[in-house]
Amino acid sequence: MIKFPPHLLEGYRNFLTGRLEAERTRYRLLAETGQRPSVMVIGCCDSRAAPETIFDAGPGELFVVRNVANLVPPYEPDGEYHGTSAALEFATKVLKVGHIVVLGHGRCGGIKAALEASPEPLSQGDFIGKWVSLLAPATQTLSGTTLMTAAERETALERISVRHSIANLRTFPDIAAMEGSGRLALHGAWFDISTGELWVMDSATGDFARPDGFGDEAEAGPAEAPMAG
Amino acid sequence: MIKFPPHLLEGYRNFLTGRLEAERTRYRLLAETGQRPSVMVIGCCDSRAAPETIFDAGPGELFVVRNVANLVPPYEPDGEYHGTSAALEFATKVLKVGHIVVLGHGRCGGIKAALEASPEPLSQGDFIGKWVSLLAPATQTLSGTTLMTAAERETALERISVRHSIANLRTFPDIAAMEGSGRLALHGAWFDISTGELWVMDSATGDFARPDGFGDEAEAGPAEAPMAG
Amino acid sequence: MIKFPPHLLEGYRNFLTGRLEAERTRYRLLAETGQRPSVMVIGCCDSRAAPETIFDAGPGELFVVRNVANLVPPYEPDGEYHGTSAALEFATKVLKVGHIVVLGHGRCGGIKAALEASPEPLSQGDFIGKWVSLLAPATQTLSGTTLMTAAERETALERISVRHSIANLRTFPDIAAMEGSGRLALHGAWFDISTGELWVMDSATGDFARPDGFGDEAEAGPAEAPMAG
Amino acid sequence: MIKFPPHLLEGYRNFLTGRLEAERTRYRLLAETGQRPSVMVIGCCDSRAAPETIFDAGPGELFVVRNVANLVPPYEPDGEYHGTSAALEFATKVLKVGHIVVLGHGRCGGIKAALEASPEPLSQGDFIGKWVSLLAPATQTLSGTTLMTAAERETALERISVRHSIANLRTFPDIAAMEGSGRLALHGAWFDISTGELWVMDSATGDFARPDGFGDEAEAGPAEAPMAG
Repeated sequence: MIKFPPHLLEGYRNFLTGRLEAERTRYRLLAETGQRPSVMVIGCCDSRAAPETIFDAGPGELFVVRNVANLVPPYEPDGEYHGTSAALEFATKVLKVGHIVVLGHGRCGGIKAALEASPEPLSQGDFIGKWVSLLAPATQTLSGTTLMTAAERETALERISVRHSIANLRTFPDIAAMEGSGRLALHGAWFDISTGELWVMDSATGDFARPDGFGDEAEAGPAEAPMAG
Repeated sequence: MIKFPPHLLEGYRNFLTGRLEAERTRYRLLAETGQRPSVMVIGCCDSRAAPETIFDAGPGELFVVRNVANLVPPYEPDGEYHGTSAALEFATKVLKVGHIVVLGHGRCGGIKAALEASPEPLSQGDFIGKWVSLLAPATQTLSGTTLMTAAERETALERISVRHSIANLRTFPDIAAMEGSGRLALHGAWFDISTGELWVMDSATGDFARPDGFGDEAEAGPAEAPMAG
Repeated sequence: MIKFPPHLLEGYRNFLTGRLEAERTRYRLLAETGQRPSVMVIGCCDSRAAPETIFDAGPGELFVVRNVANLVPPYEPDGEYHGTSAALEFATKVLKVGHIVVLGHGRCGGIKAALEASPEPLSQGDFIGKWVSLLAPATQTLSGTTLMTAAERETALERISVRHSIANLRTFPDIAAMEGSGRLALHGAWFDISTGELWVMDSATGDFARPDGFGDEAEAGPAEAPMAG
Repeated sequence: MIKFPPHLLEGYRNFLTGRLEAERTRYRLLAETGQRPSVMVIGCCDSRAAPETIFDAGPGELFVVRNVANLVPPYEPDGEYHGTSAALEFATKVLKVGHIVVLGHGRCGGIKAALEASPEPLSQGDFIGKWVSLLAPATQTLSGTTLMTAAERETALERISVRHSIANLRTFPDIAAMEGSGRLALHGAWFDISTGELWVMDSATGDFARPDGFGDEAEAGPAEAPMAG
């Protein structure tokens, strides 16, 4: 018989004697009354960018969809399977979250794949190629910008990707309506795996900056993002 | 300008002074050398069932896709956008994970929606209905089983769903081949939000049981009937 | 008669009673023995990015040429007036500096002008337009990348500009030869006016990152640059 | 990989903990609102004559172009690259400074080179020779004046050079117009590296003198003969 990975069971034991022990009542309550998160996060599958870790979130706080490169496909009511759209529908109509955060991150393998990919997916069964083709034509434009380094192009596309997902969120009529009436706010963020820095998107300009009070802990004052020029 | 949710920033500050402070070197190394997780988890968006929390996993350990009801659609090389299939492809071909864990959980809203849904999605734009229709005909069979309580039907479908996703994983030729050659193992698990219990699927029979050494909750705290969901 | 700006004289009095008072001997020695700086800096005219301020450099330390956008024109032995090339010649042949640092900075007006300019200078007397046309085709490529915000394009061009200047430095036969023989090292750096952060270019990749030990003063560990992906 | 000069990083750390610490708000404001210096300085590259040091100027105060021997070429709308003219254009048209200060200094290597040079540049690629030929015929006249010592000739040319640059400034139609209408004032100054004395040019006569209240060095420290270089 196939054995469940032992290190996962070790981790689970830590959970049992750690967080669960401390939050048993909270878990029971969450089971009985149901979840009521106020925030949905659209994150990446990357093992280094778990939203619960980055936001130190406990049970019941974040409704999280994760896919390669934190993408939101545009609204397509075509009767096909749309996993991300189903999650959006659940979050906004059933849970009625007040915030959706698109959380990108540095060193994203999906973004890198998008930049390295041919303009068209290699084959019908090239799921990654097709999936990240959601980012074309951004990908093609940046691929041609040889004056930027590979790493710079990746970072640029990671941030474009967040804005792109937010733009696609607004193609959903209900989301657009809820945002219009102030019931829902859309946010972008970008996590730097290397330094642990969180960069938050300015909703007016689309620029990313470290939030006030987070960029210069040693010097005690507000900081701004170099990307903001 | 729209304000980033303050409680997320508070959580992020906890991360900064907590885990990041303790694991700065690990994050940096993960950024430089890239992620190499040995495990992929297919989990649910539910705010109470974060894989990293349940398995107390640190950065770099779990590659995680999350969608409503932890579903895996069957292999469909039709040139359309398949987010979950893209994640699978990335995990198995790029990262070459050795394990895929389908992680279901109790009180799953997606599963509940599947049971309450009409056999057919309500409309072309009913993304949840279409998405959970991946579970029909299980849904229809259980909906007709009036001898089980509503909670029992939900728990049953939550576990059926895990087995169903694993069966669909095997429709991917590469995954089937890798499993056949012993390079990849497929696992099922189910997390009881109410008690914090983890139930692991027996790969031979499909039954769920608490793993050896974890079933003696009496000492650690009170237990509950998982069938009561 | 025109009056010399009083606030400059006030500043000069501070110099007299401050630094000069403390370093009178050093100044006299520097006058007698001549300057022997080991570093040349090619910086921007911007009032917020004085190299001596950023590097806290005293008299005799930095040989500094400053022009709009810290540009180096390519080697053109055409018998015309080339101010920057003359400075390079003086630094390398007369002073024999061991390092040349091209120092870019954020919010650079010259870079912004380059992005806003028409592909061609407006007129024969449009000195800025002609001068920053040294950065074409980078400018044109980035101007077309509408998926990046204006601020992101500016930051990208500021860094491209540093790499471009370094590449042009290597078109000077003597500089290339000296670099080849290890007598001269070429460096790039970028100063963030808003936060005071210095980002140093990786000579191998061209990426910019905060130097080890400078990116995370509060957390005591090395940091890396988000632009590095 | 090439290492960034460690002593520059040491200096930068001093900046971080010194001036930046004290002026963080000012830097941030300057980044947000842009620079608005009222003074442009045309200085020399010499490591001993940084305008910010001599005038104890903080960030945002001086827009500075620096080239060998603080020269201003005459207005030449020939469609070629003119770095100094571009800086002048930026200072007067974009920043609308009210003052331009041409800042010469003693022991100027560029001036010395001009005096030692043959009447004609040595070769097409002799950038220094060509650049300082902007000062001919003053150079030739002084070279023939055997009644002045070498040091006297240098000091004389350093001051002639300042007046020459100011004269060339007036060949720019816009600068002449702005000066005519009182919107712009042109100044000359000369810094004695050996003693730290600042000599200001009388705009009417072209003579250099220590400004009122600054000539009584006896009290502050020893003085030297400026003519002695």
